[in-house]
Amino acid sequence: MTPYATEFTKSNQKTFLQQEREQTSFDIEKINKFLDPNHEQTQIIFKQIVNDPILMTGRKFYDLTKPELRELAVKKIQRLTAYIETEKSVEDFEQRISYLSIADPGVVTRVGINLALFCNSVKGNGTDDQINYWLVERGTLQLKDVYGCFAMTELGHGSNVAGLETTATYNPETKTFLINTPSLSATKWWIGGAAHSSNHAVVFARLISQGKDHGVKTFVVQLRDSNFDLLPGVSIGDIGKKMGRDSIDNGWIQLHNVEIPKDYLLQKFTQIDDDGTVHATPLEQIAYSALLQGRVSMVADSHKHGARFSTIGLRYAIGRQQFGEQGKEETQIIDYTLHQYRLVPYLALVYLLGPGSQKLDSDYKKIMSDLYEAKNIMKTINELKDLFVSSASLKASNTWLISQLIDETRQACGGHGYHAYSGLGQAFSDWSVQQTWEGDNNVLSINAGRSIIKYYEAAQRGKKQGADFQYLSEEPLTKLNLSEDSELDTYVKAWSSIIVKVAQYALSIAKGDWESVSQERLLLSKFHSHLYLLKEYFNRLNSSTDLPSEERKVLVLLFKLYSAFNIDKFSGTFLQTGLLDAGGLTKIQGLVKSLLKQVRPHLTGLTDAFKYPDALINSSLGCYNGDFFNNYFNDVTENYGKGDKPPYLNLLQGMLKRDDPATRLSGARSEETLEKLSN
Amino acid sequence: MTPYATEFTKSNQKTFLQQEREQTSFDIEKINKFLDPNHEQTQIIFKQIVNDPILMTGRKFYDLTKPELRELAVKKIQRLTAYIETEKSVEDFEQRISYLSIADPGVVTRVGINLALFCNSVKGNGTDDQINYWLVERGTLQLKDVYGCFAMTELGHGSNVAGLETTATYNPETKTFLINTPSLSATKWWIGGAAHSSNHAVVFARLISQGKDHGVKTFVVQLRDSNFDLLPGVSIGDIGKKMGRDSIDNGWIQLHNVEIPKDYLLQKFTQIDDDGTVHATPLEQIAYSALLQGRVSMVADSHKHGARFSTIGLRYAIGRQQFGEQGKEETQIIDYTLHQYRLVPYLALVYLLGPGSQKLDSDYKKIMSDLYEAKNIMKTINELKDLFVSSASLKASNTWLISQLIDETRQACGGHGYHAYSGLGQAFSDWSVQQTWEGDNNVLSINAGRSIIKYYEAAQRGKKQGADFQYLSEEPLTKLNLSEDSELDTYVKAWSSIIVKVAQYALSIAKGDWESVSQERLLLSKFHSHLYLLKEYFNRLNSSTDLPSEERKVLVLLFKLYSAFNIDKFSGTFLQTGLLDAGGLTKIQGLVKSLLKQVRPHLTGLTDAFKYPDALINSSLGCYNGDFFNNYFNDVTENYGKGDKPPYLNLLQGMLKRDDPATRLSGARSEETLEKLSN
Repeated sequence: MTPYATEFTKSNQKTFLQQEREQTSFDIEKINKFLDPNHEQTQIIFKQIVNDPILMTGRKFYDLTKPELRELAVKKIQRLTAYIETEKSVEDFEQRISYLSIADPGVVTRVGINLALFCNSVKGNGTDDQINYWLVERGTLQLKDVYGCFAMTELGHGSNVAGLETTATYNPETKTFLINTPSLSATKWWIGGAAHSSNHAVVFARLISQGKDHGVKTFVVQLRDSNFDLLPGVSIGDIGKKMGRDSIDNGWIQLHNVEIPKDYLLQKFTQIDDDGTVHATPLEQIAYSALLQGRVSMVADSHKHGARFSTIGLRYAIGRQQFGEQGKEETQIIDYTLHQYRLVPYLALVYLLGPGSQKLDSDYKKIMSDLYEAKNIMKTINELKDLFVSSASLKASNTWLISQLIDETRQACGGHGYHAYSGLGQAFSDWSVQQTWEGDNNVLSINAGRSIIKYYEAAQRGKKQGADFQYLSEEPLTKLNLSEDSELDTYVKAWSSIIVKVAQYALSIAKGDWESVSQERLLLSKFHSHLYLLKEYFNRLNSSTDLPSEERKVLVLLFKLYSAFNIDKFSGTFLQTGLLDAGGLTKIQGLVKSLLKQVRPHLTGLTDAFKYPDALINSSLGCYNGDFFNNYFNDVTENYGKGDKPPYLNLLQGMLKRDDPATRLSGARSEETLEKLSN
Repeated sequence: MTPYATEFTKSNQKTFLQQEREQTSFDIEKINKFLDPNHEQTQIIFKQIVNDPILMTGRKFYDLTKPELRELAVKKIQRLTAYIETEKSVEDFEQRISYLSIADPGVVTRVGINLALFCNSVKGNGTDDQINYWLVERGTLQLKDVYGCFAMTELGHGSNVAGLETTATYNPETKTFLINTPSLSATKWWIGGAAHSSNHAVVFARLISQGKDHGVKTFVVQLRDSNFDLLPGVSIGDIGKKMGRDSIDNGWIQLHNVEIPKDYLLQKFTQIDDDGTVHATPLEQIAYSALLQGRVSMVADSHKHGARFSTIGLRYAIGRQQFGEQGKEETQIIDYTLHQYRLVPYLALVYLLGPGSQKLDSDYKKIMSDLYEAKNIMKTINELKDLFVSSASLKASNTWLISQLIDETRQACGGHGYHAYSGLGQAFSDWSVQQTWEGDNNVLSINAGRSIIKYYEAAQRGKKQGADFQYLSEEPLTKLNLSEDSELDTYVKAWSSIIVKVAQYALSIAKGDWESVSQERLLLSKFHSHLYLLKEYFNRLNSSTDLPSEERKVLVLLFKLYSAFNIDKFSGTFLQTGLLDAGGLTKIQGLVKSLLKQVRPHLTGLTDAFKYPDALINSSLGCYNGDFFNNYFNDVTENYGKGDKPPYLNLLQGMLKRDDPATRLSGARSEETLEKLSN
């Protein structure tokens, strides 16, 4: 507490947040449990994280430079090894770091490079012996000895993995592969961990044997020895500074005749005989399933990180006053209609993402386990295909929406949102990469959209669809008529209906030219995400039979708001397809306004119900006590200088006290001089 | 050039950009002249800026830390004094720095704090003597002696200037004011220049005299002496790190009984007698007109900076290939329909912003000059009011759109867009503040929207409107029917019609409750901006009689695209009002696709036509030669390490080579030990 602040503090006055908290009509514990079935374990993890002296870095985190962030990341990772060694399961550890990532997404990516990308590639593509050697015997899963990276992307090849250029050429005489970077565009690029910390990589390269290109396969390549000296032929550099996540030491790698033993090829789906004969199994596409975890966890991140941003924005909006009726106290900004429009639908999104992301995660885990056990393989592969589509749609749609949520929240906090200690600027920069990595959002969306059109076409031919897409066989509503009294089911049905209508339309005009319907494919992917979230949230509401009526009422408001708000947002499509008419839309717009009013008194409780500790939220504007003037002022005065002279004082004074131009030019342009020079 | 790159360079192969440049069907000089009537002077400024060894900082700019940026800013400002001393007019200098801001927006803001905010406040609110003393005699306009800042915003008061709390209490005995910060929330906050470099401020404070509060007035307050020591009672601190623009030393200021002479009150509109009697003239609202310059120049910035981002995104999209038909070369990503949708309408926006921003600027200059000359004062005040509305609508709508342009461009450059050297991450962070400062975009928009509804209502009563709003008196189209053959006028008329329809609707439901139509007000503000830009661009097309047909054809394509694309974007409103029907919308969507196809061959020429030098664009992805693999690789390898060991090697090795937990716990949990401990 600085003297400046103390002097002004009105300590006996309750903040708006404290006042509204007292009036909350429901039990936040019950809402928290609804959102997070694992809530007890979550709270234990929160306590361990926010009280850990190394993992938590406070506001100063936002002031760190790239070299400081990178070093701190390693300290934090070392600290995490103490947990990983005692954790009951890998899933428990993943859960822990997924929460840590709310406060520090960069460090968690840096662990994930090894634990998720490297290890999952070995697990997904290696034989049991290979998995055991690389992951268990060497200690990689415990962050020991081997620190792996994932060398897939090349300077010229991102989304198009099949187009990668790096080669692995087999030599039957030495029973080794020679790995090569044949061109500048084949340089492995963006490889997280490569610049400094990884000593091994899974390298994606074209297997060349007996003069034939067998396509892209995966190889383990050692990059550095135990002294961290580069192995022969390995050329590595630092990628440098990024828009965000500067904790990660991304690097580039070129490989020039780097030799690896034959059995460093990961051989679950591809084997090579000593003479160079290649055997590849047809189920090879499963190889890429290792990439799915990233997409699935980004949907979970959308929920978890979204809760952080919603909390900041709404707490600030409740505490902050501006304008209002003359002579009265200024209005809390959350009481402006437009402000509610800007923030509350995103809160609804975050709520809906809870059950939705958990469903996606449990589907993913089940399918992966079925795959490893290889039981009922054709059924599992069909489920895997559907999971590719749903996860693509959900990853793309929701990482976009959360990015918009951060930006809108930043703006809704006005000037103070622009301060580093709001946490929002850094959050935007860190989050943005989610839209691009592990599947570019636009590419994922139009792929998902194409699948939905194809599924629709198959459903019309009577083919039974998987659980996520059964709605494509159902009859759409002929006219949407939504009001406060509508069955809850109608809020879901609106979306399955619009998807069917758009798919129908796209199919009728595309005639095989997919490019001509890319707009429609994009829309379908977004709509599928809305539908998926609404359905799963609706299921959770139905299965939560012990939910008291007040809690249920509030949760239903968010459900209705999400559906109605988004129908209004996409009203052009709803009107164009004829599913809605102008009168129906006007009614829905009225419904949205009414729902916003009804949700308003519950906003403090609904953000409290996430139960995120202040330290995890790490924002001067989003603290639980709602006393944001004091919080913010104290944070700023504690961390930055007061009354300091400029470090560049001489420079500044030199400028302000400089001589006149005439003097500085030694009079060489004076009338007198010019006279002398004239003839 | 590094050996890595040289080895791989295919120097005799033309890049796509070079190939397409050769096929450009029009003269980029003619297009450049259309966009920028001042184009010859602009090119001279460009040459001076990009060849200046201090003003230009290259890619390394993106690696600078906050302290480095702040010091560099002062070096650059000192360098600018050499120009300001020889510049023909203030306008010329403003033009120069507006172009410099494309490469370094922070440093230009830091100059603008003094030259625009401080000086304009004195100019707008001071008497001739005061203006002469503070700006000329002291040398402030030449960046000498006095370096001013603008102390308006308080911790608790941003948009609501009338609610400011700082007091200036007059004492007739000493003929001085005592300036005070009465509460924490009254702390002057965000004050650019205050942390280090300003020695004076224009302080906005409530004038208290003879026990009466006369409202917020402006005072000159000296903060630091010539040694940069703080004056008595002045308390100042550093605001610290922000989302962007870290070149600026924003600070907070508290004033505790700081005494200033009576005549430090700026007295154009408010005078005070020795005994404390206050005289305020009724034209006081003009005082805020000094703030207008910021809004007007942000619309110009939207054009100028937008051109930079469009160039980066489109050059990359032309040069980059991904996917495509099997066995063929990969497709240039600009040839994907969705990619065109994402980027080309923004190019159209940037083009339309040229004439529109120039019109706004010339209106502003004319009105300001009329104001200073006080001729035809009531007419001028009406024009000023209209300018407030149009500038609010244009500032808000276009700073939003450019922010979206940057984000979309970042995503459209894929992973490489996330690299610092794309320039786009920093650009987004730097740009974001434009949405908030000098009028929060949402507040400005709903204020503009309210005025438009009021103007509409007045127009219905037969009141003649100013030039910007005459369309409100015109009959709207009953049905919009837009196709490629429509008169160009229809592309404009679509927007005046939708504004009239929405204003009509809002008026019918608001009945004085402005809160209930905030959505409609927001829409009206955005639509007014679209209309304004279309109108001015249309006027420029009509007045550019020497434009050859090919150039005109291409410029018309962008005009049509802008209108049609945005009708589709806001199709919900167009359909809901009945201005458009579903069939009409489908036709417009077809029109957009057709226009995108027609514009495609001209994209290289249309970005070249901005004539921005590489150094000003400062992006590894947006260079003129289109050889972005080599450019990017060279930039990265020249500035970052190659083959370096981690600076935190010991830390990393300590972790990877650590003992087993059993050893580290000294066997204290071994079975043997536990046996010993059991009883």
